[in-house]
Amino acid sequence: MSAAGTVTAAGLWPGAVRDAVDAEIAAFLDREAAAAPDPCLPPLVEVARTFTGGGKRIRPLFCAAGWLAAGGATGSPAIHRAGAALELFHTFALIHDDIMDNSDTRRGRPTVHRALGGGGRSGVSAAILLGDLCLVWSDRLLAAVPLPPGRIAAARPHLDAMRVEAVAGQYLDIDGTPELGDLDRAWRVVRHKTASYTVARPLQIGAALAGAREPLLRFCAAFGRPVGEAFQLRDDLLGAFGDPAATGKSSVDDFRGGKRTVLVALAWRQAGPAERRVLRAHYGRADLDAAGAAELRAAIRATGADTMTQDLIDRRIGHALDLLAAAPVPEPARPVLAALAGTATARTH
Amino acid sequence: MSAAGTVTAAGLWPGAVRDAVDAEIAAFLDREAAAAPDPCLPPLVEVARTFTGGGKRIRPLFCAAGWLAAGGATGSPAIHRAGAALELFHTFALIHDDIMDNSDTRRGRPTVHRALGGGGRSGVSAAILLGDLCLVWSDRLLAAVPLPPGRIAAARPHLDAMRVEAVAGQYLDIDGTPELGDLDRAWRVVRHKTASYTVARPLQIGAALAGAREPLLRFCAAFGRPVGEAFQLRDDLLGAFGDPAATGKSSVDDFRGGKRTVLVALAWRQAGPAERRVLRAHYGRADLDAAGAAELRAAIRATGADTMTQDLIDRRIGHALDLLAAAPVPEPARPVLAALAGTATARTH
Repeated sequence: MSAAGTVTAAGLWPGAVRDAVDAEIAAFLDREAAAAPDPCLPPLVEVARTFTGGGKRIRPLFCAAGWLAAGGATGSPAIHRAGAALELFHTFALIHDDIMDNSDTRRGRPTVHRALGGGGRSGVSAAILLGDLCLVWSDRLLAAVPLPPGRIAAARPHLDAMRVEAVAGQYLDIDGTPELGDLDRAWRVVRHKTASYTVARPLQIGAALAGAREPLLRFCAAFGRPVGEAFQLRDDLLGAFGDPAATGKSSVDDFRGGKRTVLVALAWRQAGPAERRVLRAHYGRADLDAAGAAELRAAIRATGADTMTQDLIDRRIGHALDLLAAAPVPEPARPVLAALAGTATARTH
Repeated sequence: MSAAGTVTAAGLWPGAVRDAVDAEIAAFLDREAAAAPDPCLPPLVEVARTFTGGGKRIRPLFCAAGWLAAGGATGSPAIHRAGAALELFHTFALIHDDIMDNSDTRRGRPTVHRALGGGGRSGVSAAILLGDLCLVWSDRLLAAVPLPPGRIAAARPHLDAMRVEAVAGQYLDIDGTPELGDLDRAWRVVRHKTASYTVARPLQIGAALAGAREPLLRFCAAFGRPVGEAFQLRDDLLGAFGDPAATGKSSVDDFRGGKRTVLVALAWRQAGPAERRVLRAHYGRADLDAAGAAELRAAIRATGADTMTQDLIDRRIGHALDLLAAAPVPEPARPVLAALAGTATARTH
């Protein structure tokens, strides 16, 4: 394959994976609605279908990349079904996270507990149950991946670790009381919630499904961790400084929610008395207005935490690409892994 | 084995299964705490450990009975581990149900969302996550059952159905608005939440793990459904008329929560104007006092719904025992199944 051909294939690949994963999710939900043991279920299936729409399918993409890295064939239905299982797990996590964060919208639509409210039923109760159902579905879809049982069993430890780490990360994240400058804790959330859950474990699951041996599984963890950290650091920068029209992400929600990001921990640690006054006065204020948000941005910039965070991103991606260069990964997987890592390096402000 | 020996073995059996299942749960939670990826997790493990204590282990017992019915050996570690997986699933369901019902206590101890409240964290958010974790753990334990992958795969459709039915039953149950006399809906809740989730599916899961063929799996469903219905009808009678000191169950919670039971649907349908007035005035009143509860009890008795419900229980157990007599079930499993069915027939008032 020529270099140009490789680049083109890698460029087309994410869209093809996304389409195939979406088709797997749609077919699965069709079957669940048709085989529902009670007429109360099909309307819930439709709420799940709407809510899963529009996701970026990051975990299925990393899962499929891990599969390629372990020599799996491009376009295999097995890995798309596994990706659909990860996406339904993510749907479960988002539905429950939105309850905990008391969020009203997600991807421009009402969150599930808002959509299911009304009638005689509490929207929160119904959303807890629909989240539970998505977790059960995710598991069912994974068990139905058309691969020998030994392959699925090989992926299970990575899946189990992913699920426990996702819960641990969220559990740390719902505690709003740690010090603003608690950098160690902010990193723990990043490592569990993003580095592991979003990147490293999906890579390992895909690789294990393709029969990967220990060195490649170790590479998936070593490559996935800095890439995942870079993703989260970039997300934090976008949350603070991004243009909502371009990112689809609110530019005040992280501020209002008092999110304990690495960015804000770095800012606090390097802040002088003036910046600390601003952070203390405005960070986590539910009624923060645009002027207060602008003050916060200026204070964070004054500490240099934004450029420091961008530097952390760049170094992590550089490290990941160095690891990739030395890794036992077949040629077709290289541009795919490099491109996925690269999406985290885009300058954001 | 003599008849007397069989009876003794069946009599000792539930305690032995409970002890073995408890030991599996304890060992699993020990491993989870020791291998936790973050120091925030071990305290959550301990909350789960406390909360699982004191359960009756009904689902593990039916699971082990299904295993015996399919020729599995008494005392097999595999079926105890599967039972522990079902019990952790039940722990997940109880934690989330208690949030939805806004319950303060369970088995004489604070519910999980009460126990985890305080500090900077919402107890409800933390309990949603601990419930999620129990569901993940349940799955992990099942995957670790020491049986060939084909056996676990054979049990999976029954497990999947059980989990979806449990969610459907709870979803129907959190809708407090149906008519008091909606008998069809009351039966749907009984069928999903108890008949299927508590009895028929655990029987099938145990039988499938032991390699059961189709006729035995059909027997598990046919036997389990009336037994499970009888269990729930008895629970409803205990909730309305039982002695809390003897049952460990509040004698006003079902009334205060306006629980849509088969008992109350029958009462409504047969009630005259006087009884309907009482039901309408008191059923579902959160501030119901002892006098109001006594009025409700008298009104339900006046309709004859209590004796009718007891009759429904007796007929269901009779039907189940007839099925058992004709079923392809080996001798050691017969007294066990009969005894488990019989626990539902005890007269309650």
